[in-house]
Amino acid sequence: MKMKFIALAVSAALLSGCNGDDTKTVEVIKEVEVVKEVEVNPASITSVKNVILMIGDGMGPQQVGLLEEYAQRAPNSVYKSKNNETALSKLANQGHLGLSLNAPHGPSGSLVTDSACSATQLATGIAAGSEMIGLDTEGNKIATILEKAKAMGKATGLVSDTRITHATPAAFASHQPHRSLENEIAAELISSGNVDVMLSGGARAFLPEGVNENEALKAQLDELGMPASVYKSSKREGSDNLVIQAKEQFGYSLAFDKSQLADTEGEKLLGLFANSGMADAIAYKQCQANNSCTQPSLKDMTVKALDILSQDEDGFFLMIEGGQIDWAGHANDAGWMLNELLKFDEAVEAVYEWAKDRNDTLVVVTADHETGSFGFSYTTHNKPKEGVHLPGDGMGEHTYKPKFNFGPLEQLDKLYEQKGTFYDVMAEVNSQTNFSNSTDEDWQKAIHNHTSYKVSTDDTAIMLETNGVDDENRPYPAFSDFSDFYVYGKEDFTGKIGRVLAKHQNVVWGTGTHTAAPVPVYAFGPAGVTQQFSTLQHHVDIANKMMTALGVNE
Amino acid sequence: MKMKFIALAVSAALLSGCNGDDTKTVEVIKEVEVVKEVEVNPASITSVKNVILMIGDGMGPQQVGLLEEYAQRAPNSVYKSKNNETALSKLANQGHLGLSLNAPHGPSGSLVTDSACSATQLATGIAAGSEMIGLDTEGNKIATILEKAKAMGKATGLVSDTRITHATPAAFASHQPHRSLENEIAAELISSGNVDVMLSGGARAFLPEGVNENEALKAQLDELGMPASVYKSSKREGSDNLVIQAKEQFGYSLAFDKSQLADTEGEKLLGLFANSGMADAIAYKQCQANNSCTQPSLKDMTVKALDILSQDEDGFFLMIEGGQIDWAGHANDAGWMLNELLKFDEAVEAVYEWAKDRNDTLVVVTADHETGSFGFSYTTHNKPKEGVHLPGDGMGEHTYKPKFNFGPLEQLDKLYEQKGTFYDVMAEVNSQTNFSNSTDEDWQKAIHNHTSYKVSTDDTAIMLETNGVDDENRPYPAFSDFSDFYVYGKEDFTGKIGRVLAKHQNVVWGTGTHTAAPVPVYAFGPAGVTQQFSTLQHHVDIANKMMTALGVNE
Repeated sequence: MKMKFIALAVSAALLSGCNGDDTKTVEVIKEVEVVKEVEVNPASITSVKNVILMIGDGMGPQQVGLLEEYAQRAPNSVYKSKNNETALSKLANQGHLGLSLNAPHGPSGSLVTDSACSATQLATGIAAGSEMIGLDTEGNKIATILEKAKAMGKATGLVSDTRITHATPAAFASHQPHRSLENEIAAELISSGNVDVMLSGGARAFLPEGVNENEALKAQLDELGMPASVYKSSKREGSDNLVIQAKEQFGYSLAFDKSQLADTEGEKLLGLFANSGMADAIAYKQCQANNSCTQPSLKDMTVKALDILSQDEDGFFLMIEGGQIDWAGHANDAGWMLNELLKFDEAVEAVYEWAKDRNDTLVVVTADHETGSFGFSYTTHNKPKEGVHLPGDGMGEHTYKPKFNFGPLEQLDKLYEQKGTFYDVMAEVNSQTNFSNSTDEDWQKAIHNHTSYKVSTDDTAIMLETNGVDDENRPYPAFSDFSDFYVYGKEDFTGKIGRVLAKHQNVVWGTGTHTAAPVPVYAFGPAGVTQQFSTLQHHVDIANKMMTALGVNE
Repeated sequence: MKMKFIALAVSAALLSGCNGDDTKTVEVIKEVEVVKEVEVNPASITSVKNVILMIGDGMGPQQVGLLEEYAQRAPNSVYKSKNNETALSKLANQGHLGLSLNAPHGPSGSLVTDSACSATQLATGIAAGSEMIGLDTEGNKIATILEKAKAMGKATGLVSDTRITHATPAAFASHQPHRSLENEIAAELISSGNVDVMLSGGARAFLPEGVNENEALKAQLDELGMPASVYKSSKREGSDNLVIQAKEQFGYSLAFDKSQLADTEGEKLLGLFANSGMADAIAYKQCQANNSCTQPSLKDMTVKALDILSQDEDGFFLMIEGGQIDWAGHANDAGWMLNELLKFDEAVEAVYEWAKDRNDTLVVVTADHETGSFGFSYTTHNKPKEGVHLPGDGMGEHTYKPKFNFGPLEQLDKLYEQKGTFYDVMAEVNSQTNFSNSTDEDWQKAIHNHTSYKVSTDDTAIMLETNGVDDENRPYPAFSDFSDFYVYGKEDFTGKIGRVLAKHQNVVWGTGTHTAAPVPVYAFGPAGVTQQFSTLQHHVDIANKMMTALGVNE
């Protein structure tokens, strides 16, 4: 309020009609200018120099609820040392919260989005088609907020724990008719000149065909510091080596592991830390516990990107994706999903710390869509058997005996403590049986090895219901209900593991794909910019609000 | 801003140190006072005279998304004449939006709530146990916002399209160890003296045992204007007639149908418009179309309650529940649910119109929890077969051919056009076969008669999978997946109908019960009151914010 107050006081002094002397008036005006610098009313600020957009892929309201319940009420919550407060809740409490519809927009759109369409709409403010990257519904290339920021001289960055060529980061800086064209996306990302900092996995779309059989090339990559785990294979055809091109032709510094990332300098940086997707959050939790992580974390990449981009006096645009929340949702794996949410929130914390004392930066955290139709739910399984006497004056002759099991809070700890993803469960079974002759005991054992739950072979019997086989004679999982929503073949054994555990976890899932649930939007920064997000908007609106605040909208 | 501006201008004039004349200063101060009355900064208002709380039972973010998508994008949206704008979106755009966790609160709570616990927490701001009404976790009676408002001399009201004795309205004005004690709740509601206006269904908890065999009593009820459909049965034991007591002992006017409600006068009003729950939204849509509704709508009851309560110069508290959104969610019936959301939004519209030009009223619209883990979702069913040529410069040699069916917008119209609820589908099959010897053709035919979808007998084969029988030898439906979350016996045939239709509707469900998804909170009124809701809070926080704004918190 301070600035407005004094400015108005001056007007009043001038208008009061008395014979004040001029010198005095000038002094007051000087005072105003000083105050303006020191204490500006955040509600009066409507533009910013920097925009940081964080996308929790698949992080619908249900997922955010899971994170908050864990942080606030898990008996052994790792947030205990932080007053049980997530970074997301700091943004919500000190900023504004809203919701956003995310489907392919407009009258020719549809009901549910994929990540490519959603990210395109978030990046451009324009209706987009399904599975297309940076194109409108007619297939035209459309400018993104990142490209517009670059055109204004701002620095730009993309960070993701999936692949830098994956749909979400791709849609901010490339234009392709289908999200699967990751090789073309890789080429566009490094050659466009629009992205200063790129930190993620996905080296396989940058390296030449047959990389792992080419000793000369391997020696060259070794010399660059690339670990063998990063160059183990290529998805490209032909001999183009985009890693070398990025360095020699386009001026990028390179980093391939956590320590290289820490040491690297320069304004342009390409970090490729995995051949495909980066480490999942359970693996991250484990390497962190024994201090053995070789990949940077999502937080590490975020901090580095902020370090570099904030050097630019013109400001910056940075997109950070927590992309594996979505993968855990597709897998119907609540324990993995919770760990991904924690990993993402750690990056949010870093952004919050960087931005909290500034009034020139807008932070928006949202999701591209919800994944899995996830929920905690009440059930007849393990329902209370005995009534409990309560002392209160309202009980009369009654004991307390709810008819259902509403879910003990210990579930939250058990989910957090999961020791591997459902893919790890599958890998254990597959390594022994190739799936095709697996038994309910095999599944039971693998589930016991990776989760906190004791299931019975009655529970795991459904793992043996299959439907057809693939080229290698491995069976596809069969679903009794909602089978048309489990669309990923063998990978969907994970969805069946989710069904085995459901009643034990108080967890339900509706689908192996996405839903159209409106997703949360956290807006943090000057109130004059953030308050407009406290409504039920659409993702194209979020894009336009961000671009207007950043001053890049025509 | 006006008030603050002028007030500060005066201070400046006094402080400016010049020899202004006193008369002038006094004039300025008078100006300030006038301006204050005319144009107050809404952000500076932190208390209100009236609170209107609207609860969409089971209306999670997914449900609100369904309503918005229908309103904005259904090809034949009934909102076309309203600029495709829902009343809820007016509240969001002109007020604030947030999210709220709703589980049984605190470290001894659990993960998922029922309506009784949720409404108790919303009514009191205190952690409550599952299935209890107006009691804390120890079973103590705790004061509700309604009771506190009454103690301050304000008028109070409860409106619901379920039963007035149902968990949600009950928790605002009664205190019972279990929600099933509806007879005790009825007695408490009329005798406590705390509720001025009660409008809902649920006459069966007010009428004496054997009402339908007692000709003298029936004649008495006829004379009161009660239609036979309202007194057709009693759930009570004994001869207490709470309807007569309400009138003679406690001074309530009575109303039993739409026209009686319109005509009634007086400060205390008990309206009982159905024996149990009131008409569902599809039946309402149909009677409205041919002008044959005999029950008042949720909107009619809302308008009447506002008419009466707003006469009180001390202000009022009013709770309005759209209770059948939840029932449709339990039934996994998306078409019915959409119609319930429209019915609720019609009541929201009435509240918006009443409140929009006031600055003394806080309107909060929220849900007690989400029901069903509902979602639109993408699927392989009916996926695009042919690529489409697009003219855009980004397509290269590619055609547009998404790999999945992301859901055509026509689904929205088809859901709206549903001709009966899934209970009506069941009733048709049961009337012919008593379920026990029903065929897939019976189910196919009944589904065709009530919905917009053509299903096959392959689809309806799952209706014949049963598990055990009830006392009358009627089978219970069997669920393959998530069976422990379908807890309502025969009623859950509805959940199987939801599975039959899922791929045809692009709709998925996770449960026959509730989920813990954080629910939307719409806050409309003076910005100084509403802005605090734009965060991720808990239902106990909502209650405390409402009570503080209303000035009833100690």
